[in-house]
Amino acid sequence: MKEFQLIQQIQQGLSVSAADNLQSGVILGIGDDAAVVEVPAGRHLVAATDTLNAGVHFPVATLPFDIAYKCLAVNLSDMAAMGAIPRWALLSLSLPEAGQQWVMSFIDGFNSLANNHGVVLIGGDTTHGPLSVSLTALGLVKPGMQLVRHGAKPGDLLVVSGTVGGAARVLDLLQQDADSQAGGDLKDRRLLDRPVPRVELGQCLPGYATSCIDISDGLLADLGHVLAASSCGASIVLEKLPGDEILNGLENHLKWNYQLSGGDDYELLFTLPPEHREMLNTWSHRSAVELSIIGQIEEQPGIRCTTLTGERFDPQQAGFEHFQKNDEPHGTR
Amino acid sequence: MKEFQLIQQIQQGLSVSAADNLQSGVILGIGDDAAVVEVPAGRHLVAATDTLNAGVHFPVATLPFDIAYKCLAVNLSDMAAMGAIPRWALLSLSLPEAGQQWVMSFIDGFNSLANNHGVVLIGGDTTHGPLSVSLTALGLVKPGMQLVRHGAKPGDLLVVSGTVGGAARVLDLLQQDADSQAGGDLKDRRLLDRPVPRVELGQCLPGYATSCIDISDGLLADLGHVLAASSCGASIVLEKLPGDEILNGLENHLKWNYQLSGGDDYELLFTLPPEHREMLNTWSHRSAVELSIIGQIEEQPGIRCTTLTGERFDPQQAGFEHFQKNDEPHGTR
Repeated sequence: MKEFQLIQQIQQGLSVSAADNLQSGVILGIGDDAAVVEVPAGRHLVAATDTLNAGVHFPVATLPFDIAYKCLAVNLSDMAAMGAIPRWALLSLSLPEAGQQWVMSFIDGFNSLANNHGVVLIGGDTTHGPLSVSLTALGLVKPGMQLVRHGAKPGDLLVVSGTVGGAARVLDLLQQDADSQAGGDLKDRRLLDRPVPRVELGQCLPGYATSCIDISDGLLADLGHVLAASSCGASIVLEKLPGDEILNGLENHLKWNYQLSGGDDYELLFTLPPEHREMLNTWSHRSAVELSIIGQIEEQPGIRCTTLTGERFDPQQAGFEHFQKNDEPHGTR
Repeated sequence: MKEFQLIQQIQQGLSVSAADNLQSGVILGIGDDAAVVEVPAGRHLVAATDTLNAGVHFPVATLPFDIAYKCLAVNLSDMAAMGAIPRWALLSLSLPEAGQQWVMSFIDGFNSLANNHGVVLIGGDTTHGPLSVSLTALGLVKPGMQLVRHGAKPGDLLVVSGTVGGAARVLDLLQQDADSQAGGDLKDRRLLDRPVPRVELGQCLPGYATSCIDISDGLLADLGHVLAASSCGASIVLEKLPGDEILNGLENHLKWNYQLSGGDDYELLFTLPPEHREMLNTWSHRSAVELSIIGQIEEQPGIRCTTLTGERFDPQQAGFEHFQKNDEPHGTR
């Protein structure tokens, strides 16, 4: 398949009508040297880009459907962490070879998530190279209402959505049983392959949350970014950490390691002044996701993880880190 | 070097002050989950993304300075082809390993071009993986004033900026002499490594040019996109094709092949109703680039290349094409 045919196939697979474009503020979509969109008056533009490389961010055998889904999900998760409404996406796709089946499945995966959020693919690039997907998400936010990392204050509640540690556990199970890479148990793989970007939740938080980040590198690592930007510390109560049932039956230290250091969950971690605590129920209901208060922000720098009985726990590994020495290609991130 | 340090190094290397940010409409730059920018009232947003893979779009031994320069250049070239003013960029950088020297040189290359055009890097992503650079350029255009591919009309003059075929010739010379890959003659390599995005020229054209595209895949291939979108054909007079002096001394058929089919020139190819012909001098002066009328748009589909004496010439290869059968990694594109 030639590049031109590939782009045509993508364009057809998206099946965006002129009416869709108009409604989405798309003045000029796929097919020119660049796309043109209308940012409505009274809105700022929010822009994020994230790349997923085969063998690094997803196992090589991952289905194209899931690769597309996940690449969009991690970018929408960035929009969510900013309190933004995602609107448009640009896709850069590097492929070793361009198979029609592969591309169809990829576009299906993209559509399955994009359509839920009214996100329109407006352009991109297809190149020959190692399998890699780079996506830029563009969204909108009211001026001054974006969520940031630097606003956490001592006394704020530390809140996390959904569950943490499940994706890392699935990845470990997959790596322990290489056979299951081809399929695996679908329900479990969803934790790794189909993270749910908390877009609705993110839009609840502006005006209330003092800081927000999405958990891509692990709870402690990402909390660390918030604390560094906000010049404060935090305490976490280990028993309050929400865990998927895939973690059931594990010894506590193993479970806590997954929850504190496992990446790829794409849940939102945010800080909330205690006077807004009663909003959590409303937001949980509105965005159909559990919200757990797992600790609080403190003046003292550093992160203190303790049990309800006051026992201290330090995880083995503080989140995923690219570019460490002896960094070998691994299954995901 | 850790990812966080890498991002810090990039941030420091950019040395964008708060005042710069304010002036550039940057509300929130590098350091959060996404960037926030202000699109001024009365402007639409123009967005393009282009990826360069090592061994595919540039020789593996290309200097990091040149990789960064070129990746920004090809994206700014897309902005130019739309008649847009480039404003912001998002960078996704995949690196096999993160060396401080490499990153410093890369950022220098980015700055060397970005600063000329007032383009601010507002965010991005750094990942572990095969060397690949994906850049998203964001720019501004007055509503309805974007240049498009679909407006060419029979009778329009076909105009190209600068020279064509030089980059492809340099690449061939480099491939013939693998030793020279490490350095090569600097002046010649510039044609390949340091294309000049015709941003100023692009901004002259709205309201006059009926279509525009940048030449990345080769003159005929890119003209083909314009003609397909505009449902017409074109004729080209071979002697009118502007060539860099690196093509001097070549036999005509070789030279024409480079000029018609060579990619990577990043010149603008546009169509102009003959009544605006006198604007060409003004634009050439304002944007400091030669403009050549190389042919005209015709009703009859297809592209007819002839000499001044009416002799027909068909090039061997109609531009660069990703994903052809037996496509081997090559030096550039």
